[in-house]
Amino acid sequence: MTHVFDEATAVARIDEIDGHVVRATTHPAYNNMVGPFGGVTAATVVRALQEHPEVLGEPLALTINYAAPIAEGEWDLALVLIRTNRTNQHWTFTIDQNGGVVATGTAVFGVRRDTWADTEDHAPDLPPVDDVPASDFPEFIAWARNYDKRFVVGGLDAASDDSTSTLWLRDEPARAIDYPSLTSMTDAFFPRVFLRHGTYMPAGTISLTTYFHATRDELAAQGAGHVRATARGSRFGNGHFDQYGQIWGDGDRLLATTHQLVYYKDVPQ
Amino acid sequence: MTHVFDEATAVARIDEIDGHVVRATTHPAYNNMVGPFGGVTAATVVRALQEHPEVLGEPLALTINYAAPIAEGEWDLALVLIRTNRTNQHWTFTIDQNGGVVATGTAVFGVRRDTWADTEDHAPDLPPVDDVPASDFPEFIAWARNYDKRFVVGGLDAASDDSTSTLWLRDEPARAIDYPSLTSMTDAFFPRVFLRHGTYMPAGTISLTTYFHATRDELAAQGAGHVRATARGSRFGNGHFDQYGQIWGDGDRLLATTHQLVYYKDVPQ
Repeated sequence: MTHVFDEATAVARIDEIDGHVVRATTHPAYNNMVGPFGGVTAATVVRALQEHPEVLGEPLALTINYAAPIAEGEWDLALVLIRTNRTNQHWTFTIDQNGGVVATGTAVFGVRRDTWADTEDHAPDLPPVDDVPASDFPEFIAWARNYDKRFVVGGLDAASDDSTSTLWLRDEPARAIDYPSLTSMTDAFFPRVFLRHGTYMPAGTISLTTYFHATRDELAAQGAGHVRATARGSRFGNGHFDQYGQIWGDGDRLLATTHQLVYYKDVPQ
Repeated sequence: MTHVFDEATAVARIDEIDGHVVRATTHPAYNNMVGPFGGVTAATVVRALQEHPEVLGEPLALTINYAAPIAEGEWDLALVLIRTNRTNQHWTFTIDQNGGVVATGTAVFGVRRDTWADTEDHAPDLPPVDDVPASDFPEFIAWARNYDKRFVVGGLDAASDDSTSTLWLRDEPARAIDYPSLTSMTDAFFPRVFLRHGTYMPAGTISLTTYFHATRDELAAQGAGHVRATARGSRFGNGHFDQYGQIWGDGDRLLATTHQLVYYKDVPQ
Protein backbone atom coordinates (compact mmCIF):
# COMPACT_ATOMS: atom_id res chain seq x y z
CA MET A 1 0.00 0.00 0.00
CA THR A 2 1.31 3.44 -0.90
CA HIS A 3 2.05 5.67 2.08
CA VAL A 4 0.13 8.96 2.06
CA PHE A 5 3.45 10.84 2.03
CA ASP A 6 4.40 9.13 -1.24
CA GLU A 7 0.99 9.96 -2.70
CA ALA A 8 1.38 13.61 -1.65
CA THR A 9 4.89 14.04 -3.11
CA ALA A 10 4.35 12.21 -6.39
CA VAL A 11 5.15 14.10 -9.58
CA ALA A 12 4.66 13.31 -13.25
CA ARG A 13 6.75 14.72 -16.08
CA ILE A 14 4.72 16.93 -18.38
CA ASP A 15 5.72 17.99 -21.86
CA GLU A 16 7.28 21.41 -22.04
CA ILE A 17 9.31 22.87 -24.85
CA ASP A 18 11.30 24.87 -22.39
CA GLY A 19 12.99 22.58 -19.87
CA HIS A 20 12.17 19.87 -17.35
CA VAL A 21 8.75 20.42 -15.80
CA VAL A 22 6.84 18.08 -13.52
CA ARG A 23 3.30 18.34 -12.23
CA ALA A 24 2.32 17.78 -8.60
CA THR A 25 -1.07 17.87 -6.91
CA THR A 26 -1.83 19.09 -3.40
CA HIS A 27 -3.05 16.33 -1.10
CA PRO A 28 -5.83 17.08 1.42
CA ALA A 29 -4.03 14.99 4.06
CA TYR A 30 -1.26 17.62 4.12
CA ASN A 31 -3.37 20.76 4.20
CA ASN A 32 -2.28 23.55 6.51
CA MET A 33 -4.31 26.50 7.80
CA VAL A 34 -3.82 28.30 4.47
CA GLY A 35 -2.70 26.15 1.55
CA PRO A 36 -0.64 22.98 1.81
CA PHE A 37 1.95 22.28 4.50
CA GLY A 38 5.21 23.81 3.22
CA GLY A 39 7.24 20.81 4.30
CA VAL A 40 5.50 18.59 1.78
CA THR A 41 5.98 21.15 -0.98
CA ALA A 42 9.71 21.23 -0.20
CA ALA A 43 9.79 17.42 -0.04
CA THR A 44 8.18 17.21 -3.46
CA VAL A 45 10.95 19.38 -4.90
CA VAL A 46 13.62 17.11 -3.41
CA ARG A 47 11.87 14.02 -4.73
CA ALA A 48 11.51 15.53 -8.22
CA LEU A 49 15.21 16.41 -8.23
CA GLN A 50 16.13 12.88 -7.14
CA GLU A 51 14.05 11.53 -10.02
CA HIS A 52 15.66 13.87 -12.58
CA PRO A 53 17.69 11.83 -15.10
CA GLU A 54 20.74 14.09 -14.77
CA VAL A 55 20.92 14.24 -10.97
CA LEU A 56 24.34 13.84 -9.34
CA GLY A 57 24.54 12.21 -5.92
CA GLU A 58 22.40 13.14 -2.94
CA PRO A 59 20.79 16.31 -1.61
CA LEU A 60 23.16 18.65 0.22
CA ALA A 61 21.17 21.90 0.47
CA LEU A 62 17.68 23.17 -0.31
CA THR A 63 16.25 26.66 -0.11
CA ILE A 64 12.59 27.27 -0.90
CA ASN A 65 10.88 30.66 -0.80
CA TYR A 66 7.12 30.64 -0.47
CA ALA A 67 5.99 33.64 -2.50
CA ALA A 68 2.22 33.10 -2.44
CA PRO A 69 -0.26 30.58 -1.03
CA ILE A 70 -0.62 27.42 -3.11
CA ALA A 71 -4.27 26.66 -3.86
CA GLU A 72 -5.67 23.14 -3.74
CA GLY A 73 -5.04 21.33 -6.99
CA GLU A 74 -2.23 20.93 -9.47
CA TRP A 75 1.02 22.91 -9.51
CA ASP A 76 3.95 22.78 -11.89
CA LEU A 77 7.59 22.58 -10.91
CA ALA A 78 10.27 23.63 -13.40
CA LEU A 79 13.74 22.30 -12.54
CA VAL A 80 16.77 24.02 -14.08
CA LEU A 81 20.17 22.36 -13.94
CA ILE A 82 22.63 25.25 -13.59
CA ARG A 83 25.97 23.51 -13.38
CA THR A 84 27.46 20.11 -12.66
CA ASN A 85 30.90 20.19 -11.05
CA ARG A 86 33.10 17.21 -10.22
CA THR A 87 31.46 16.56 -6.85
CA ASN A 88 28.42 18.82 -6.74
CA GLN A 89 25.56 20.09 -8.81
CA HIS A 90 23.56 23.33 -8.67
CA TRP A 91 19.84 23.67 -9.40
CA THR A 92 17.22 26.37 -9.41
CA PHE A 93 13.48 25.80 -9.49
CA THR A 94 10.19 27.63 -9.87
CA ILE A 95 6.71 26.55 -8.86
CA ASP A 96 3.86 27.89 -10.99
CA GLN A 97 0.16 27.62 -10.41
CA ASN A 98 -2.64 29.18 -12.45
CA GLY A 99 -0.18 31.28 -14.43
CA GLY A 100 1.66 32.82 -11.47
CA VAL A 101 4.83 31.95 -9.59
CA VAL A 102 4.05 30.74 -6.07
CA ALA A 103 7.51 29.56 -4.99
CA THR A 104 11.15 29.68 -6.07
CA GLY A 105 14.31 28.15 -4.77
CA THR A 106 17.70 26.58 -5.20
CA ALA A 107 19.21 23.20 -4.44
CA VAL A 108 22.65 21.68 -4.28
CA PHE A 109 23.22 17.98 -4.76
CA GLY A 110 26.55 16.25 -4.47
CA VAL A 111 28.70 13.24 -3.87
CA ARG A 112 29.72 12.52 -0.31
CA ARG A 113 33.42 11.63 -0.01
CA ASP A 114 35.24 10.05 2.89
CA THR A 115 36.95 12.80 4.91
CA TRP A 116 37.84 13.71 8.45
CA ALA A 117 34.58 13.88 10.37
CA ASP A 118 33.22 15.01 13.70
CA THR A 119 29.78 15.81 15.04
CA GLU A 120 30.45 18.66 17.39
CA ASP A 121 26.95 19.39 18.55
CA HIS A 122 25.03 17.09 20.89
CA ALA A 123 21.65 15.47 20.42
CA PRO A 124 18.94 16.51 22.86
CA ASP A 125 18.76 14.15 25.81
CA LEU A 126 15.20 12.80 25.78
CA PRO A 127 13.32 10.18 27.78
CA PRO A 128 12.58 6.98 25.82
CA VAL A 129 9.99 7.53 23.11
CA ASP A 130 7.50 5.15 24.74
CA ASP A 131 7.56 7.24 27.92
CA VAL A 132 6.40 10.39 26.09
CA PRO A 133 2.73 10.66 25.12
CA ALA A 134 1.81 11.47 21.53
CA SER A 135 -0.01 14.78 21.12
CA ASP A 136 -2.66 15.95 18.71
CA PHE A 137 -2.92 19.27 16.95
CA PRO A 138 -6.33 20.76 16.23
CA GLU A 139 -8.41 19.51 13.34
CA PHE A 140 -7.64 22.50 11.08
CA ILE A 141 -3.94 21.56 10.94
CA ALA A 142 -4.53 18.46 8.82
CA TRP A 143 -0.88 17.70 8.00
CA ALA A 144 0.04 17.18 11.63
CA ARG A 145 -2.07 14.02 11.73
CA ASN A 146 0.52 12.45 9.42
CA TYR A 147 3.17 12.76 12.13
CA ASP A 148 3.58 10.95 15.41
CA LYS A 149 4.71 13.88 17.62
CA ARG A 150 5.88 13.37 21.18
CA PHE A 151 6.82 16.71 22.71
CA VAL A 152 9.26 16.65 25.59
CA VAL A 153 9.33 20.45 25.77
CA GLY A 154 7.44 23.15 23.93
CA GLY A 155 4.19 21.51 22.89
CA LEU A 156 1.16 23.49 21.80
CA ASP A 157 -0.59 23.30 25.16
CA ALA A 158 0.73 26.42 26.93
CA ALA A 159 2.54 29.72 26.38
CA SER A 160 6.25 29.75 27.13
CA ASP A 161 8.99 32.38 27.45
CA ASP A 162 11.24 29.91 25.63
CA SER A 163 10.41 29.12 22.01
CA THR A 164 12.24 25.78 22.06
CA SER A 165 10.31 22.68 21.00
CA THR A 166 12.01 19.30 21.33
CA LEU A 167 10.19 16.14 20.37
CA TRP A 168 10.28 12.60 19.11
CA LEU A 169 8.94 12.63 15.56
CA ARG A 170 8.15 10.16 12.81
CA ASP A 171 5.71 9.74 9.95
CA GLU A 172 2.31 8.33 10.89
CA PRO A 173 1.87 5.58 9.84
CA ALA A 174 5.55 4.72 10.24
CA ARG A 175 7.59 5.02 7.05
CA ALA A 176 11.30 4.48 6.40
CA ILE A 177 12.96 7.92 6.34
CA ASP A 178 14.43 9.24 3.09
CA TYR A 179 15.58 12.66 1.87
CA PRO A 180 12.08 13.87 0.96
CA SER A 181 10.59 12.89 4.32
CA LEU A 182 13.61 14.33 6.17
CA THR A 183 13.04 17.58 4.24
CA SER A 184 9.44 17.67 5.35
CA MET A 185 10.39 16.99 8.98
CA THR A 186 12.62 20.07 9.00
CA ASP A 187 9.45 22.13 8.52
CA ALA A 188 7.31 20.12 10.94
CA PHE A 189 7.67 22.55 13.84
CA PHE A 190 4.64 24.79 14.26
CA PRO A 191 5.42 28.54 14.18
CA ARG A 192 7.41 29.55 17.28
CA VAL A 193 5.08 32.54 17.90
CA PHE A 194 2.31 30.04 18.74
CA LEU A 195 4.48 28.71 21.55
CA ARG A 196 5.48 32.15 22.81
CA HIS A 197 1.81 33.22 22.95
CA GLY A 198 0.15 29.91 23.71
CA THR A 199 -2.27 30.51 20.87
CA TYR A 200 -2.63 30.39 17.10
CA MET A 201 -1.75 33.48 15.13
CA PRO A 202 -1.56 34.24 11.44
CA ALA A 203 1.95 33.03 10.52
CA GLY A 204 3.70 31.34 7.64
CA THR A 205 7.17 30.39 6.45
CA ILE A 206 8.67 32.84 3.94
CA SER A 207 11.97 31.08 3.33
CA LEU A 208 13.25 27.66 4.42
CA THR A 209 16.83 26.39 4.07
CA THR A 210 17.79 22.83 4.98
CA TYR A 211 21.23 21.24 4.91
CA PHE A 212 21.34 17.46 4.63
CA HIS A 213 24.10 15.89 6.68
CA ALA A 214 22.82 12.28 6.60
CA THR A 215 24.29 9.85 4.12
CA ARG A 216 21.99 7.48 2.28
CA ASP A 217 23.34 4.63 4.44
CA GLU A 218 22.57 6.53 7.62
CA LEU A 219 18.98 7.09 6.48
CA ALA A 220 18.66 3.40 5.62
CA ALA A 221 19.94 2.47 9.09
CA GLN A 222 17.48 4.91 10.69
CA GLY A 223 14.56 3.20 8.97
CA ALA A 224 11.12 4.03 10.32
CA GLY A 225 12.23 4.86 13.87
CA HIS A 226 11.52 8.17 15.57
CA VAL A 227 13.99 11.00 15.14
CA ARG A 228 14.70 13.70 17.70
CA ALA A 229 13.72 17.14 16.44
CA THR A 230 14.46 20.48 18.07
CA ALA A 231 13.89 24.08 17.01
CA ARG A 232 13.86 27.57 18.47
CA GLY A 233 13.65 31.20 17.43
CA SER A 234 16.25 33.80 18.35
CA ARG A 235 14.62 37.12 17.47
CA PHE A 236 10.95 38.00 17.01
CA GLY A 237 10.06 41.46 15.80
CA ASN A 238 8.67 43.70 13.07
CA GLY A 239 6.49 40.91 11.71
CA HIS A 240 9.17 38.23 11.31
CA PHE A 241 11.18 35.70 13.27
CA ASP A 242 13.86 33.15 12.53
CA GLN A 243 13.81 29.48 13.50
CA TYR A 244 16.91 27.29 13.74
CA GLY A 245 16.39 23.54 14.02
CA GLN A 246 18.11 20.16 14.00
CA ILE A 247 16.97 16.61 13.27
CA TRP A 248 18.88 13.85 15.05
CA GLY A 249 18.82 10.12 14.32
CA ASP A 250 19.87 7.03 16.23
CA GLY A 251 23.47 6.88 17.39
CA ASP A 252 23.49 10.65 17.79
CA ARG A 253 23.74 11.20 14.06
CA LEU A 254 22.86 14.74 13.05
CA LEU A 255 20.70 14.16 9.97
CA ALA A 256 19.86 17.75 9.04
CA THR A 257 20.15 21.36 10.17
CA THR A 258 17.57 23.94 9.13
CA HIS A 259 16.94 27.66 9.30
CA GLN A 260 13.74 29.44 8.34
CA LEU A 261 12.27 32.93 8.29
CA VAL A 262 8.63 33.20 9.29
CA TYR A 263 6.07 35.97 8.87
CA TYR A 264 3.54 36.66 11.60
CA LYS A 265 0.80 39.10 12.49
CA ASP A 266 -0.32 40.09 15.94
CA VAL A 267 -3.75 38.88 16.90
CA PRO A 268 -6.01 41.86 17.70
CA GLN A 269 -6.71 41.82 21.47
CA MET B 1 36.74 59.51 -0.07
CA THR B 2 34.99 56.35 -1.18
CA HIS B 3 35.43 53.38 1.19
CA VAL B 4 36.98 50.33 -0.43
CA PHE B 5 33.84 48.32 0.40
CA ASP B 6 31.74 50.76 -1.62
CA GLU B 7 34.18 50.51 -4.51
CA ALA B 8 34.06 46.70 -4.36
CA THR B 9 30.26 46.46 -4.31
CA ALA B 10 29.49 49.08 -6.95
CA VAL B 11 27.35 48.00 -9.90
CA ALA B 12 26.34 49.70 -13.12
CA ARG B 13 23.21 48.95 -15.12
CA ILE B 14 24.00 47.48 -18.52
CA ASP B 15 21.65 47.30 -21.43
CA GLU B 16 19.93 43.95 -21.76
CA ILE B 17 16.86 43.15 -23.79
CA ASP B 18 15.91 40.48 -21.30
CA GLY B 19 15.53 41.96 -17.85
CA HIS B 20 17.45 43.99 -15.28
CA VAL B 21 21.18 43.25 -15.46
CA VAL B 22 23.99 45.06 -13.67
CA ARG B 23 27.73 44.68 -14.05
CA ALA B 24 30.13 44.35 -11.12
CA THR B 25 33.91 44.04 -11.05
CA THR B 26 35.97 42.02 -8.59
CA HIS B 27 38.17 44.17 -6.38
CA PRO B 28 41.68 42.97 -5.48
CA ALA B 29 41.26 44.22 -1.92
CA TYR B 30 38.61 41.53 -1.39
CA ASN B 31 40.40 38.58 -2.99
CA ASN B 32 40.21 35.26 -1.20
CA MET B 33 42.43 32.19 -1.64
CA VAL B 34 40.51 31.27 -4.83
CA GLY B 35 38.41 34.01 -6.39
CA PRO B 36 36.81 36.89 -4.52
CA PHE B 37 35.58 36.74 -0.92
CA GLY B 38 32.01 35.39 -1.10
CA GLY B 39 30.78 37.91 1.44
CA VAL B 40 31.44 40.79 -0.90
CA THR B 41 29.73 38.98 -3.79
CA ALA B 42 26.65 38.51 -1.58
CA ALA B 43 26.85 42.14 -0.46
CA THR B 44 26.94 43.29 -4.07
CA VAL B 45 23.69 41.40 -4.74
CA VAL B 46 22.01 43.08 -1.76
CA ARG B 47 23.24 46.49 -2.87
CA ALA B 48 22.06 45.91 -6.46
CA LEU B 49 18.62 44.88 -5.16
CA GLN B 50 18.43 47.97 -2.94
CA GLU B 51 19.21 50.12 -5.99
CA HIS B 52 16.57 48.40 -8.16
CA PRO B 53 13.79 50.90 -9.02
CA GLU B 54 11.02 48.46 -8.05
CA VAL B 55 12.42 47.34 -4.70
CA LEU B 56 9.99 47.14 -1.75
CA GLY B 57 11.30 47.85 1.73
CA GLU B 58 14.42 46.32 3.24
CA PRO B 59 16.27 43.00 2.95
CA LEU B 60 14.72 40.15 4.93
CA ALA B 61 16.46 37.06 3.54
CA LEU B 62 19.23 36.23 1.12
CA THR B 63 20.43 32.87 -0.19
CA ILE B 64 23.41 32.68 -2.54
CA ASN B 65 24.83 29.48 -4.01
CA TYR B 66 28.40 29.62 -5.24
CA ALA B 67 28.42 27.29 -8.25
CA ALA B 68 31.90 27.99 -9.60
CA PRO B 69 34.87 30.23 -8.75
CA ILE B 70 34.53 33.81 -9.95
CA ALA B 71 37.58 34.94 -11.89
CA GLU B 72 39.10 38.38 -11.47
CA GLY B 73 37.31 40.90 -13.63
CA GLU B 74 33.74 41.78 -14.56
CA TRP B 75 30.67 39.72 -13.75
CA ASP B 76 27.03 40.26 -14.60
CA LEU B 77 24.13 40.01 -12.19
CA ALA B 78 20.60 39.47 -13.52
CA LEU B 79 17.86 40.35 -11.04
CA VAL B 80 14.39 38.89 -11.55
CA LEU B 81 11.43 40.29 -9.63
CA ILE B 82 9.20 37.28 -9.03
CA ARG B 83 6.34 38.73 -7.04
CA THR B 84 5.45 41.76 -4.94
CA ASN B 85 2.97 41.09 -2.15
CA ARG B 86 1.48 43.65 0.20
CA THR B 87 4.38 43.52 2.68
CA ASN B 88 7.08 41.45 0.97
CA GLN B 89 8.76 40.90 -2.34
CA HIS B 90 10.47 37.85 -3.86
CA TRP B 91 13.53 37.91 -6.11
CA THR B 92 15.78 35.44 -7.87
CA PHE B 93 19.17 36.23 -9.33
CA THR B 94 21.90 34.73 -11.47
CA ILE B 95 25.56 35.71 -11.76
CA ASP B 96 27.19 35.09 -15.13
CA GLN B 97 30.82 35.41 -16.07
CA ASN B 98 32.44 34.57 -19.40
CA GLY B 99 29.27 32.91 -20.66
CA GLY B 100 28.73 30.57 -17.70
CA VAL B 101 26.66 30.77 -14.52
CA VAL B 102 28.87 31.10 -11.45
CA ALA B 103 26.23 31.79 -8.79
CA THR B 104 22.48 31.74 -8.26
CA GLY B 105 20.21 32.71 -5.44
CA THR B 106 17.03 34.16 -4.04
CA ALA B 107 16.15 37.14 -1.91
CA VAL B 108 13.17 38.38 0.02
CA PHE B 109 12.67 42.05 0.79
CA GLY B 110 9.84 43.47 2.83
CA VAL B 111 8.30 46.11 4.98
CA ARG B 112 8.88 45.86 8.71
CA ARG B 113 5.68 46.43 10.70
CA ASP B 114 5.29 47.13 14.39
CA THR B 115 4.41 43.88 16.17
CA TRP B 116 5.00 42.06 19.42
CA ALA B 117 8.75 41.58 19.72
CA ASP B 118 11.29 39.72 21.81
CA THR B 119 14.93 38.81 21.36
CA GLU B 120 15.13 35.43 22.98
CA ASP B 121 18.76 34.61 22.38
CA HIS B 122 21.58 36.36 24.23
CA ALA B 123 24.53 38.24 22.83
CA PRO B 124 27.96 36.77 23.61
CA ASP B 125 29.47 38.32 26.72
CA LEU B 126 32.76 39.82 25.56
CA PRO B 127 35.43 41.96 27.20
CA PRO B 128 35.50 45.58 25.98
CA VAL B 129 36.72 45.87 22.41
CA ASP B 130 39.77 47.92 23.44
CA ASP B 131 40.91 45.09 25.71
CA VAL B 132 41.05 42.57 22.83
CA PRO B 133 43.97 42.77 20.41
CA ALA B 134 43.29 42.92 16.68
CA SER B 135 44.61 39.91 14.76
CA ASP B 136 45.96 39.56 11.27
CA PHE B 137 45.28 36.82 8.75
CA PRO B 138 48.03 35.74 6.36
CA GLU B 139 48.82 37.82 3.30
CA PHE B 140 47.03 35.45 0.88
CA ILE B 141 43.64 36.16 2.50
CA ALA B 142 43.47 39.71 1.18
CA TRP B 143 39.85 40.45 2.14
CA ALA B 144 40.53 39.99 5.84
CA ARG B 145 42.67 43.14 5.85
CA ASN B 146 39.44 45.09 5.29
CA TYR B 147 38.13 43.97 8.68
CA ASP B 148 39.20 44.86 12.17
CA LYS B 149 38.91 41.42 13.84
CA ARG B 150 39.34 40.94 17.58
CA PHE B 151 38.91 37.28 18.46
CA VAL B 152 37.89 36.47 22.00
CA VAL B 153 37.70 32.74 21.22
CA GLY B 154 38.52 30.71 18.14
CA GLY B 155 41.13 32.75 16.33
CA LEU B 156 43.33 31.28 13.64
CA ASP B 157 46.33 30.71 15.91
CA ALA B 158 45.67 27.17 17.21
CA ALA B 159 43.63 24.01 16.64
CA SER B 160 40.53 23.61 18.81
CA ASP B 161 38.03 20.84 19.56
CA ASP B 162 35.37 23.55 19.51
CA SER B 163 34.69 25.26 16.18
CA THR B 164 33.24 28.39 17.82
CA SER B 165 34.72 31.74 16.89
CA THR B 166 33.50 34.83 18.71
CA LEU B 167 34.93 38.22 17.92
CA TRP B 168 34.52 41.95 17.75
CA LEU B 169 34.28 42.90 14.08
CA ARG B 170 34.00 46.04 11.97
CA ASP B 171 35.08 47.28 8.56
CA GLU B 172 38.65 48.59 8.35
CA PRO B 173 38.78 51.55 7.93
CA ALA B 174 35.64 52.07 10.01
CA ARG B 175 32.44 52.46 7.97
CA ALA B 176 28.82 52.95 9.07
CA ILE B 177 27.12 49.54 8.82
CA ASP B 178 24.37 49.02 6.25
CA TYR B 179 22.63 45.95 4.79
CA PRO B 180 25.37 45.19 2.25
CA SER B 181 28.16 45.37 4.83
CA LEU B 182 26.09 43.35 7.32
CA THR B 183 25.65 40.74 4.59
CA SER B 184 29.38 40.56 4.07
CA MET B 185 30.03 40.26 7.80
CA THR B 186 27.83 37.15 7.97
CA ASP B 187 30.42 35.45 5.72
CA ALA B 188 33.48 36.92 7.47
CA PHE B 189 34.18 33.80 9.55
CA PHE B 190 37.00 31.72 8.12
CA PRO B 191 36.04 28.07 7.43
CA ARG B 192 35.46 26.19 10.70
CA VAL B 193 37.67 23.30 9.54
CA PHE B 194 40.68 25.65 9.78
CA LEU B 195 39.92 26.12 13.46
CA ARG B 196 39.36 22.42 14.12
CA HIS B 197 42.68 21.53 12.44
CA GLY B 198 44.70 24.65 13.28
CA THR B 199 45.68 24.92 9.63
CA TYR B 200 44.49 26.01 6.21
CA MET B 201 42.71 23.45 4.07
CA PRO B 202 40.96 23.64 0.71
CA ALA B 203 37.46 24.83 1.65
CA GLY B 204 34.76 27.10 0.28
CA THR B 205 31.18 28.13 0.89
CA ILE B 206 28.65 26.31 -1.29
CA SER B 207 25.49 27.98 -0.04
CA LEU B 208 24.96 30.94 2.30
CA THR B 209 21.66 32.06 3.79
CA THR B 210 21.34 35.21 5.86
CA TYR B 211 18.25 36.57 7.61
CA PHE B 212 18.24 40.30 8.35
CA HIS B 213 16.67 41.15 11.69
CA ALA B 214 18.00 44.72 11.99
CA THR B 215 15.79 47.61 11.03
CA ARG B 216 17.25 50.50 9.07
CA ASP B 217 17.06 52.64 12.22
CA GLU B 218 18.96 50.04 14.22
CA LEU B 219 21.72 49.98 11.62
CA ALA B 220 21.87 53.78 11.65
CA ALA B 221 22.18 53.73 15.45
CA GLN B 222 24.94 51.12 15.24
CA GLY B 223 26.98 53.37 12.99
CA ALA B 224 30.63 52.42 12.54
CA GLY B 225 31.03 50.68 15.89
CA HIS B 226 32.20 47.07 16.28
CA VAL B 227 29.60 44.29 16.18
CA ARG B 228 29.87 41.00 18.05
CA ALA B 229 30.05 38.05 15.68
CA THR B 230 29.86 34.38 16.57
CA ALA B 231 29.75 31.19 14.50
CA ARG B 232 30.18 27.45 14.90
CA GLY B 233 29.74 24.20 12.98
CA SER B 234 27.61 21.33 14.20
CA ARG B 235 28.57 18.42 11.92
CA PHE B 236 31.67 17.91 9.80
CA GLY B 237 31.79 14.91 7.49
CA ASN B 238 31.81 13.55 3.97
CA GLY B 239 33.39 16.69 2.58
CA HIS B 240 30.92 19.22 4.00
CA PHE B 241 30.05 21.06 7.19
CA ASP B 242 27.44 23.58 8.28
CA GLN B 243 28.08 26.86 10.04
CA TYR B 244 25.49 28.76 12.08
CA GLY B 245 26.27 32.33 13.05
CA GLN B 246 24.89 35.50 14.57
CA ILE B 247 25.83 39.18 14.36
CA TRP B 248 24.96 41.31 17.39
CA GLY B 249 24.92 45.10 17.66
CA ASP B 250 24.93 47.53 20.55
CA GLY B 251 22.14 47.20 23.08
CA ASP B 252 22.06 43.45 22.48
CA ARG B 253 20.29 43.85 19.17
CA LEU B 254 20.48 40.71 17.05
CA LEU B 255 21.21 42.18 13.63
CA ALA B 256 21.39 38.98 11.56
CA THR B 257 21.40 35.19 11.75
CA THR B 258 23.17 33.11 9.15
CA HIS B 259 23.60 29.49 8.09
CA GLN B 260 26.05 28.21 5.50
CA LEU B 261 27.17 24.93 3.96
CA VAL B 262 30.88 24.62 3.29
CA TYR B 263 32.86 22.20 1.16
CA TYR B 264 36.27 20.99 2.36
CA LYS B 265 38.98 18.54 1.39
CA ASP B 266 41.38 16.80 3.71
CA VAL B 267 44.95 17.91 3.44
CA PRO B 268 47.14 14.94 2.48
CA GLN B 269 49.30 14.05 5.50
